[in-house]
Amino acid sequence: MTTLNSIEGGRFYGIGTGPGDPELITLKAARLIASADVVAYFCKRGKRGNARDIADAHIHGGQREEPMVYPVTTELPHTSQAYRDRIEAFFDASADMLAGHLAAGRSVVVLNEGDPFFYGSFMHVYLRLKDRFPSTIIPGVPSIMSSAALLPTPLTMRDDVLSVVPGTLPDDALHERLSSVDAAVIMKVGSNLDRIVAVLERLGMCQRAWYVERSSMAAEYCCRLPEASVDRAPYFSMIVVPGTGERR
Amino acid sequence: MTTLNSIEGGRFYGIGTGPGDPELITLKAARLIASADVVAYFCKRGKRGNARDIADAHIHGGQREEPMVYPVTTELPHTSQAYRDRIEAFFDASADMLAGHLAAGRSVVVLNEGDPFFYGSFMHVYLRLKDRFPSTIIPGVPSIMSSAALLPTPLTMRDDVLSVVPGTLPDDALHERLSSVDAAVIMKVGSNLDRIVAVLERLGMCQRAWYVERSSMAAEYCCRLPEASVDRAPYFSMIVVPGTGERR
Ligand SMILES: C[S@@+](CC[C@H](N)C(=O)[O-])C[C@H]1O[C@@H](n2cnc3c(N)ncnc32)[C@H](O)[C@@H]1O
Ligand SMILES: C[S@@+](CC[C@H](N)C(=O)[O-])C[C@H]1O[C@@H](n2cnc3c(N)ncnc32)[C@H](O)[C@@H]1O
Repeated sequence: MTTLNSIEGGRFYGIGTGPGDPELITLKAARLIASADVVAYFCKRGKRGNARDIADAHIHGGQREEPMVYPVTTELPHTSQAYRDRIEAFFDASADMLAGHLAAGRSVVVLNEGDPFFYGSFMHVYLRLKDRFPSTIIPGVPSIMSSAALLPTPLTMRDDVLSVVPGTLPDDALHERLSSVDAAVIMKVGSNLDRIVAVLERLGMCQRAWYVERSSMAAEYCCRLPEASVDRAPYFSMIVVPGTGERR
Repeated sequence: MTTLNSIEGGRFYGIGTGPGDPELITLKAARLIASADVVAYFCKRGKRGNARDIADAHIHGGQREEPMVYPVTTELPHTSQAYRDRIEAFFDASADMLAGHLAAGRSVVVLNEGDPFFYGSFMHVYLRLKDRFPSTIIPGVPSIMSSAALLPTPLTMRDDVLSVVPGTLPDDALHERLSSVDAAVIMKVGSNLDRIVAVLERLGMCQRAWYVERSSMAAEYCCRLPEASVDRAPYFSMIVVPGTGERR
């Protein structure tokens, strides 16, 4: 337990900021962000990014900020080897930058939307630094919980099994992984929405499913999946199928 | 988004307190607990319970506390109809008690360890009250995230599918549900530990698995499953199998 331990120089902290509402940050995350020497976060060019926005109230002028700006790569297909090389080189450079601060004895927090170990971009620098510098993970409220909070029924009850499935899986894998679930969450919906809905229709699951967009953010939106009129699902969207609590 | 909305009389709030460390409560949960007329929570006779302990710093003398004390039932087998009747009657009475406060226009927070919609005891009063009174769910850091935070590798990466499986399932169901997972969490370990380990051994998964006890609490303990020397796993224990991030 690290309660009330003060922040440590030369250590990096993977901080879960929660899903969007700045009030859904934990006391611990707020304290560590406010006391860190260096505050780092991933973002797109020209944007501060969601994690930095959520943490805003806890960052002050005396700190060094390190935005890690994704390289603009619209010219390369995201499945190409050239794109992958470029993005890996970017993560290498980001980790080197953080290593410089750590080697100089500075405390470093890396902000991460939701929970850092749950599909978080933090992993890219974590895996590069974990054997060289001490680290601590501060868990956060994941987006599956803020999305489920909008439903009129619990996500999981009693003996329900919950499956969390990335919508980026190919159709046949999606179908297989969703074919015997009690409760399910499909993340990374975005441009995969139509494919995912088609799979859920084939499985007869649409009536039980909910579409959730930007949960806990200003423009949050939630409705039953068959009632969703979405042309293009945004990045911050997911599908939630609550369990029934009945053993099958 | 309900940020900075003040608490509402006649409404009940299912509050996630986080997994144990009092600093892993959210700013929103802390604020709502401090401003509620009535603070309710489940507990065992003679104990305050984990959720009430976590929230302690935010509760003050001007509030009405409503411990909902589980009936002592050591004389009845937990699978018997008599036990079930007794526990259902207890949940009915608890919901009636809360309904009295709500009908009188009081704001009521119901504390819940971790996240309230994730296998939370809150469901028992929620399902009884949700059609009669307005409610809001405040998501919390679930114990799967505080447990995964102790591992030297992320819980889920890239296209990993995560399965959350209650250890209370019968052996064959456990085996089936765990037979094709990338990442997995087995909750409600306790007295089911030996059965669960036997299933994981048959599936060749023990080497990848971690045993976690009381994550984020004072006596937290985490080790690789084959190295765990546990005679009797406590209630607050789980097994975590992190994903590999490789598409199979
Ligand atoms: C790379 S994952 C990061 C997950 C994050 N670490 C967490 O714990 O929630 C990004 C995906 O999370 C989901 N997501 C994140 N925030 C969300 C929100 N506020 N509302 C709905 N979905 C969200 C979306 O499916 C999005 O594509
Ligand atoms: C009824 S479930 C409640 C889960 C809770 N609502 C949550 O979001 O984490 C109880 C189970 O959660 C797990 N658990 C809860 N807190 C834990 C902790 N601090 N460390 C390890 N496991 C925990 C154990 O497996 C326990 O049997």
